[in-house]
Amino acid sequence: MAFRLTFQSKISQARLGRLQTIRGVLKTPLFMPIATRGVVKGITAAEVRNLKAQIILANTYHLMVNLGEDFLNKMGGLPKFMNWENPILTDSGGYQVFSLAKHRKISDRGVNFRDPSSGTEFFLSPEESIRMQKAIGSDIIIALDECTPKTVSRKEASEAVSRTVKWAKRCFQEHQKDKRGQLLFAVGQGDRFLDLRLQCLKDLKKIDFDGYCYGGMAPLKTVYKMLEKVIPAYPQDKPRYLMGVGYPNDIVESVKRGIDMFDCVIPTREGRHGRIFIRKKGIKLTEPGFYETINLPQEKLKFSRKLFSAGYDSPVCKKYTWAYVNYLFKIGDYLGPRLASLHNLAFYLNLMQEIREEIKRGKF
Amino acid sequence: MAFRLTFQSKISQARLGRLQTIRGVLKTPLFMPIATRGVVKGITAAEVRNLKAQIILANTYHLMVNLGEDFLNKMGGLPKFMNWENPILTDSGGYQVFSLAKHRKISDRGVNFRDPSSGTEFFLSPEESIRMQKAIGSDIIIALDECTPKTVSRKEASEAVSRTVKWAKRCFQEHQKDKRGQLLFAVGQGDRFLDLRLQCLKDLKKIDFDGYCYGGMAPLKTVYKMLEKVIPAYPQDKPRYLMGVGYPNDIVESVKRGIDMFDCVIPTREGRHGRIFIRKKGIKLTEPGFYETINLPQEKLKFSRKLFSAGYDSPVCKKYTWAYVNYLFKIGDYLGPRLASLHNLAFYLNLMQEIREEIKRGKF
Repeated sequence: MAFRLTFQSKISQARLGRLQTIRGVLKTPLFMPIATRGVVKGITAAEVRNLKAQIILANTYHLMVNLGEDFLNKMGGLPKFMNWENPILTDSGGYQVFSLAKHRKISDRGVNFRDPSSGTEFFLSPEESIRMQKAIGSDIIIALDECTPKTVSRKEASEAVSRTVKWAKRCFQEHQKDKRGQLLFAVGQGDRFLDLRLQCLKDLKKIDFDGYCYGGMAPLKTVYKMLEKVIPAYPQDKPRYLMGVGYPNDIVESVKRGIDMFDCVIPTREGRHGRIFIRKKGIKLTEPGFYETINLPQEKLKFSRKLFSAGYDSPVCKKYTWAYVNYLFKIGDYLGPRLASLHNLAFYLNLMQEIREEIKRGKF
Repeated sequence: MAFRLTFQSKISQARLGRLQTIRGVLKTPLFMPIATRGVVKGITAAEVRNLKAQIILANTYHLMVNLGEDFLNKMGGLPKFMNWENPILTDSGGYQVFSLAKHRKISDRGVNFRDPSSGTEFFLSPEESIRMQKAIGSDIIIALDECTPKTVSRKEASEAVSRTVKWAKRCFQEHQKDKRGQLLFAVGQGDRFLDLRLQCLKDLKKIDFDGYCYGGMAPLKTVYKMLEKVIPAYPQDKPRYLMGVGYPNDIVESVKRGIDMFDCVIPTREGRHGRIFIRKKGIKLTEPGFYETINLPQEKLKFSRKLFSAGYDSPVCKKYTWAYVNYLFKIGDYLGPRLASLHNLAFYLNLMQEIREEIKRGKF
């Protein structure tokens, strides 16, 4: 068994676990920095490693469109190509096909789509998604799902759930042919419809996946309520991954509801725009307002000699003052977005560390 | 005496020297990476240091316009602000005032100008230039000169020379008030007019500057010829700095003509545009074609597993393959320009190292 539950909170659904992957053991709950196209924007793999990131996420859709299966097979996989030695997770490509691609034609066979930036036509099927993720060389691969928009009707959501289950089975079969130690997760869909979510889970649980994701495009307010009702139906002994979430408070709320894994572009994207996350001292994680966001540049920080990342595990940032990083944003030098991305990732990774410690102390 | 000539080539004007500054001893001939506004674009001070850069250059004009004298005095100078521990040189601000600023009014008193990006009015005099460079905390400061455009007439060039000499004297006097161990260099002007250049030098040599620059905006072809005639008139026992030059072959040609110090935006600017300098093995520095420029991205490098900066002192770059850096330029991720800037700086710094070794071996 790849996953081992090591601690279950008595006051919430929060839990601690260890997930064994090819490239190492992961402590959950965890957060994955995003290297969409095989690079965390502007940052080297060595810098991400120095932040003590346990695992990163790369996007199958973008790697399919920009690099392709043959290229990655030839180059020995993405970790080697981008010089990343720790574990890596890839999504199935489904979310991006349903949110980014144009001229999409879905059938049970798979999805035909056109990449909007190059205009090239692609085909993504369950089998192709698995083969692509094998070429990438992910430690954790995800079964292709049908991801429905926020406005989805019950009928459409129901159809997407049955297709997601059928595709998950085909992914499982494709994966069985040549497992290479890679873990395979499936995605629970069903949007805002509780019975569809539970049905989806029930069907997916019949297959022995290594982990189960919670997918969809619904707003987080509905997600919280749904998690409370659906997560108890997820297997206890398998990791649960809430895809694409979120702000620091969203992560705390979701951990309380039993989620083990997260990924999100927020720390890097917000960092590039000069929005810096800071832990507020003396306020517990489980209380509102445990962090604040500081916008750069701002006049107030012009003379601040305080170290930018004081208290965070960010070896690059902590040599510079707030005044200097503020100035970099003022003059528009791209070292600013870089230091801010590193800082925000360090904030998220430190947050996960703090969450794990609080769970262990029985306070979460 | 701050400068010590340690070796003079017998076959050219090339020479080796050591220049003692506040923050350390510099081996000449040397190249200074450019941190115009207190940052080498996109690169941390620690990364520049790891390239074994001896000294960097910052621009008085940009620091005056973006930070100001009061700010820098309050923050304890630029090296501290940007976390750079090695020596630093600043230009006088003259070149930028004459090439960038708008609504320029020159008088013997100094220059009134408007910064085009903010629209703010500034005044730069010889005294103000020195005070600004003291606030920056440079190891080497440069006397304010009048820099004339390529199309300058003899009359205008002659007037600029007399003003440059007058201003140099005032800079010297201002500097004497509070030397703080900082070195002061003067700039020889006179454009393409040999007699004006020699007259300028003669007048400047009457004052005991710590080094002498060669300034101007003339094309390099005329500069080479001029150097051959003018450099012998420069003091033997003082460093000579050719401002704003150049491509690798320009540096080699100028070292042969007795130049000790260089700065240029070429390695970083070209790097940002995907133009990568590579030393061609087996071809001597003094032969034409000793380096080549590789343009990224290009199809030919798609699969190249060769390490990007193999053979260069660039600890960050040398972990990545040509294929990966090529890919970063293809997808437009700003890690590409960053790695290319670091590589090109390493190329320039290694080139200077090679030049120094060749001079020592008597082959230059």
